[in-house]
Amino acid sequence: MDQTSLRILVTGGTFDKDYHELEGRLFFRATHVPEMLRLGRCRVGVVVEPLMLIDSLEMTDADRARVLAACRGASEERIVITHGTDTMELTARVVGAAKLAKTIVLTGAMVPYTFGSSDGLFNLGGALAFAQALPHGTYVAMNGRCLGWDNVRKNKSTGVFEPHEGE
Amino acid sequence: MDQTSLRILVTGGTFDKDYHELEGRLFFRATHVPEMLRLGRCRVGVVVEPLMLIDSLEMTDADRARVLAACRGASEERIVITHGTDTMELTARVVGAAKLAKTIVLTGAMVPYTFGSSDGLFNLGGALAFAQALPHGTYVAMNGRCLGWDNVRKNKSTGVFEPHEGE
Amino acid sequence: MDQTSLRILVTGGTFDKDYHELEGRLFFRATHVPEMLRLGRCRVGVVVEPLMLIDSLEMTDADRARVLAACRGASEERIVITHGTDTMELTARVVGAAKLAKTIVLTGAMVPYTFGSSDGLFNLGGALAFAQALPHGTYVAMNGRCLGWDNVRKNKSTGVFEPHEGE
Amino acid sequence: MDQTSLRILVTGGTFDKDYHELEGRLFFRATHVPEMLRLGRCRVGVVVEPLMLIDSLEMTDADRARVLAACRGASEERIVITHGTDTMELTARVVGAAKLAKTIVLTGAMVPYTFGSSDGLFNLGGALAFAQALPHGTYVAMNGRCLGWDNVRKNKSTGVFEPHEGE
Repeated sequence: MDQTSLRILVTGGTFDKDYHELEGRLFFRATHVPEMLRLGRCRVGVVVEPLMLIDSLEMTDADRARVLAACRGASEERIVITHGTDTMELTARVVGAAKLAKTIVLTGAMVPYTFGSSDGLFNLGGALAFAQALPHGTYVAMNGRCLGWDNVRKNKSTGVFEPHEGE
Repeated sequence: MDQTSLRILVTGGTFDKDYHELEGRLFFRATHVPEMLRLGRCRVGVVVEPLMLIDSLEMTDADRARVLAACRGASEERIVITHGTDTMELTARVVGAAKLAKTIVLTGAMVPYTFGSSDGLFNLGGALAFAQALPHGTYVAMNGRCLGWDNVRKNKSTGVFEPHEGE
Repeated sequence: MDQTSLRILVTGGTFDKDYHELEGRLFFRATHVPEMLRLGRCRVGVVVEPLMLIDSLEMTDADRARVLAACRGASEERIVITHGTDTMELTARVVGAAKLAKTIVLTGAMVPYTFGSSDGLFNLGGALAFAQALPHGTYVAMNGRCLGWDNVRKNKSTGVFEPHEGE
Repeated sequence: MDQTSLRILVTGGTFDKDYHELEGRLFFRATHVPEMLRLGRCRVGVVVEPLMLIDSLEMTDADRARVLAACRGASEERIVITHGTDTMELTARVVGAAKLAKTIVLTGAMVPYTFGSSDGLFNLGGALAFAQALPHGTYVAMNGRCLGWDNVRKNKSTGVFEPHEGE
């Protein structure tokens, strides 16, 4: 494992949702990714680039094109994309179909990081590891697993990411 | 990434320390690894095997031999060992020198999981990922990185795991 | 301070909101009050009575009448009501105007208990104390203070509870 | 309830213990009381005065004399003392016997605030409330209750504070 540096592209999603005290609703204030890396005592060379802070249900084709462009333009060979879970598989397909000579891993969370029970730290740790260890390609890292971009879907009734044809 | 199942060998360490309310000190009650996998919404096939629950400063040669024997005896090809950080590099050397035909990843935490700011979830997510993605060998996964068993040490003044010869 | 037992009437509010993983929104599952009392190592004799689990913006006149009836019907002389903050002052007025021979304290939270940063534990501890120590009357206990039912309002722009005429 | 301001005298105790990452033990870094007041959205006028940061088992007669002197010298009529639980009853007796014309409430925690499951926020909320609502005297506020300085002891086997003669 060399000292390869990594880029984390932030798009928002449950990962980064905060609670708005005065309005009693969830919203985006700023990304929590740097704080999560600090909590994880992460010492990998990482550049965090916030692209957008949106719910993935609101992500447009133009947004996905922007994510792909950021992957293409990054000088790093290894990239993690934080993303809402609802349409993560769609963005994975857009990025994966481009067949860049990079290792790109999308990840997210079912529970906001600011809630104590978040799966975000677990997933972020996994995504950074997969991004360092896997060959070029585009993957989704959720639930401790890593699935290829053309063989992943979120099971809407369980919230679990699984291979497209089932298991 | 196939559906390979994994074994997690628990040895204790900071990971699993609890606070003893009546005595005001840290102690081991039981491993938190299953709860951490649940929080992480982990869906990898995992067997958790508690070997011991001790501070790694108290780990003896006999204990390390037991860890090695458990690695050797496991039917799984992919193994994660949770371990105190103080002597993790010693156990990595004992296991690594045996050159088993398995992928074995040691991990741990600087802060007990029961403290809110724990790096445990982040490290466990990373260790499970490295164990799935890396070729046979023995590794230490800490601080978001993965280092080979014969090239890792804990820097006592910073608490960071780094290559033996520095970087 | 005698061993007077207390009744906690639960109506919902931010206090009790949970995060719905599959739908990505806040909702009510069940009250967290018993768990909060356990965390607080509370040893006061307390009966927890869930009346409803609603957002206080949805509370109707009939709901408030039900809260008042529960206060009137309770065998305990000391009562805490957990309540959403948006209309807490309205319910306080309905209950307070009845001039029951009881000490009744309404409290709530700006942040759900399931979020790490909740003010709920702090407020619940305060409300139980005020309910034990104050003479008969109806009060709102928020922000570490206790204000009379006829002299309290929530400042919508700051989220702080203050005397009606300002300070 | 008027706008009486309060003084919080900090002496340390479990309340304020932190985890030392490099040494794997509990220690005192700085008091968490201001952060706890912020989390509790406390709007009572409070002055926080750190007197010492020690384990209450190490508290000497000289230390207790210093606590009493601080109570006597404070311009505020209402005082909360944060204190380790092991010898809280001893300090309560020293302060209580002085019969100052003030309301003085000692409180503490069984679990450090930095652990998620802390009873500290609950107790602090209660202590501030009792300090505002009770007549002059010295009290111990723990477990949701408030006991007089001459009738309180910590049950060493349960960790619960109870009246001296039992209940």
